[in-house]
Amino acid sequence: MTPDYPRGATGLLLVDPYNDFLSEGGKIWPRVQAIAEANGLIANLKAIADTVRGAGMRVFYAPHRRWEPGDYEDWAHPNPTQRAIMHRHSFARGEWGGDWHPDFIPQPGDVIAKEHWAQSGFASTDLDQQLRQHGISHVILIGLLANTCIESTARYAMEIGYHVTLVRDATAAFSEEMMHAAHVLNGPTYAHAILSTAELLAALSRESG
Amino acid sequence: MTPDYPRGATGLLLVDPYNDFLSEGGKIWPRVQAIAEANGLIANLKAIADTVRGAGMRVFYAPHRRWEPGDYEDWAHPNPTQRAIMHRHSFARGEWGGDWHPDFIPQPGDVIAKEHWAQSGFASTDLDQQLRQHGISHVILIGLLANTCIESTARYAMEIGYHVTLVRDATAAFSEEMMHAAHVLNGPTYAHAILSTAELLAALSRESG
Amino acid sequence: MTPDYPRGATGLLLVDPYNDFLSEGGKIWPRVQAIAEANGLIANLKAIADTVRGAGMRVFYAPHRRWEPGDYEDWAHPNPTQRAIMHRHSFARGEWGGDWHPDFIPQPGDVIAKEHWAQSGFASTDLDQQLRQHGISHVILIGLLANTCIESTARYAMEIGYHVTLVRDATAAFSEEMMHAAHVLNGPTYAHAILSTAELLAALSRESG
Amino acid sequence: MTPDYPRGATGLLLVDPYNDFLSEGGKIWPRVQAIAEANGLIANLKAIADTVRGAGMRVFYAPHRRWEPGDYEDWAHPNPTQRAIMHRHSFARGEWGGDWHPDFIPQPGDVIAKEHWAQSGFASTDLDQQLRQHGISHVILIGLLANTCIESTARYAMEIGYHVTLVRDATAAFSEEMMHAAHVLNGPTYAHAILSTAELLAALSRESG
Repeated sequence: MTPDYPRGATGLLLVDPYNDFLSEGGKIWPRVQAIAEANGLIANLKAIADTVRGAGMRVFYAPHRRWEPGDYEDWAHPNPTQRAIMHRHSFARGEWGGDWHPDFIPQPGDVIAKEHWAQSGFASTDLDQQLRQHGISHVILIGLLANTCIESTARYAMEIGYHVTLVRDATAAFSEEMMHAAHVLNGPTYAHAILSTAELLAALSRESG
Repeated sequence: MTPDYPRGATGLLLVDPYNDFLSEGGKIWPRVQAIAEANGLIANLKAIADTVRGAGMRVFYAPHRRWEPGDYEDWAHPNPTQRAIMHRHSFARGEWGGDWHPDFIPQPGDVIAKEHWAQSGFASTDLDQQLRQHGISHVILIGLLANTCIESTARYAMEIGYHVTLVRDATAAFSEEMMHAAHVLNGPTYAHAILSTAELLAALSRESG
Repeated sequence: MTPDYPRGATGLLLVDPYNDFLSEGGKIWPRVQAIAEANGLIANLKAIADTVRGAGMRVFYAPHRRWEPGDYEDWAHPNPTQRAIMHRHSFARGEWGGDWHPDFIPQPGDVIAKEHWAQSGFASTDLDQQLRQHGISHVILIGLLANTCIESTARYAMEIGYHVTLVRDATAAFSEEMMHAAHVLNGPTYAHAILSTAELLAALSRESG
Repeated sequence: MTPDYPRGATGLLLVDPYNDFLSEGGKIWPRVQAIAEANGLIANLKAIADTVRGAGMRVFYAPHRRWEPGDYEDWAHPNPTQRAIMHRHSFARGEWGGDWHPDFIPQPGDVIAKEHWAQSGFASTDLDQQLRQHGISHVILIGLLANTCIESTARYAMEIGYHVTLVRDATAAFSEEMMHAAHVLNGPTYAHAILSTAELLAALSRESG
């Protein structure tokens, strides 16, 4: 059973829609390409964002820190991903890889939360406060990666009282077993709904009907 | 390579060591028993706690909410696990299932953080503040379950700047693939070290030697 | 102009209504008595709580840590108030001073947040999550002290997106200039409304009419 | 008695050193000028920052949101100060008023936390995580305003376990009674030390001696 998505209280969280993740030539695209293409990821992200905006609901960007020279170098405990970023410079600020994928340029009325340093879009950012100041109680998470930023953001959202929806084919990961972990093993312990894009679109159109 | 564990700055987080999880007759024991026994879980938890205390390091309990009548009933969005708890009454307050397993009774000098409502020992509790007021920068997480409370607590710990160690055979889960997800798929993206109990004990004795 | 208080989204925060603060013979009562009596504090607190409950709105208790032996002794940086509490044992657990004032015993349906260690009812507690899980966006703060726990709780509430109401004569402090600081100097920079009890009751009855 | 400031664990928080606050011609300068000049504010801020950097300690900027068109307009509950900023455009991004005062340009090695939306430099920012990743347990707060951003940032710092120092003549406010409220009425309830610039410099030089 799909939940109801109250129009004034539902927010779409678009996580890390950067060229490095989503575009041919992006630094991380080769690692997600197989699953992204099998899922129809770009088309699904687009359909969801369009439907959400068309229904008068709001889109919130939860963007990863764009790498800058010096990042993490004087931190006591950068995590393994951050140590990798120090070498590969993912999402570099001011470069194409750290730009929004052309299909996911923020639109007027969208809210861009502060950049997150690690995995959770809520940690050390204003995402929670922005959601509240816009009256949001229900969040739908789409973007990348299913088992890292999406999962950490979703786990946090649940802890602080949001209704949390994951969308199986509006995300990707480096392997099928990571997708399985995100949506079959872990997601059902904390997420209020785990839907396909088709199921979500049906629920949203019902709401906006 | 195992990290160094500075004596005054290392804390052991013992997550949810309740009879319902760890004792014959516990409500959830049947679901973790196979992995717990294969891992030597009880012996490993005990060895780590004893070694930590013997080394003059501090143990912090991160306990799950003990179920009370009415819990979650008037909440807007209890999560799937919380809805299950409303029926099975896991960790009921005042009952044997919600008591500490007899091998893991808090000792003088241990700190018992406030109970967490969901998965993260940090969410809506004083765990972070207690760790800080005791000067802790490095946390070692043991207890249950690998892919839910341990993982959410560890993800949070990383986000707020702790050095995070997972211990593969000092935890358990409902299935081997959940263990695999926790330690092979997800853990390496956020944890600073993922050790066996033997590796951890060696590192701790090196430190306390 | 008094704000509207939406019935399903307004919560009353009752801060630290302990005998030590509010009752003849309480450890801190002598320091607040002059202002409390001049304000009609007890009667005002009671009138507000009764009206809120009568209007079908919810009361949330934000209680201070009840002192226990050993409190703060192994903390790196107890604050000045906490150091004082180590000597005077304010709000001692299990003693009369740490009991609720008899007029402010929690009623069925009330929510009791976890105890706060210092001044803010939100810090290291589940108050925020409890408010959210009950759909609250507007908080009204009453209780003690105007310039410490009430002010810190109110400042936090504002930061995380709540609509915040202070009530000038439903609180007290150690001196008139502290009351002036709370309601004339500082409150107007962060609070959305600063009312008298009479103004608040009028607004609430308008809402519940 | 002044505290010790451990070199590797002490951070200076420089709050909102913008032209609008500190420079002749700034939008808010006329309201703080009397106290700032009486205090020798600019000279004191400079002396402290120089001494801290000279002692090999780190400076953390905690900057207020620079106003942008549209700010707060679609928020449910902007606070009174935010509503005022919607009109007066304090700290406008890209304008002189929102630039750093020329004496307080960030230097190599300084950390600039994310901008805060309201009063607390910790709320909805990465200040806490940045402090931790640099090993800071002691914070010294200087800048503006004594009873708003400095006080809220300091109250938060205390709640999450920092050792907190205020500096009476390295801040300012709109009136003497606000200064009195910050340093005589409220500060002593939560701050671990309230010093003059001279006392702080003596303590720092002792440390770095």
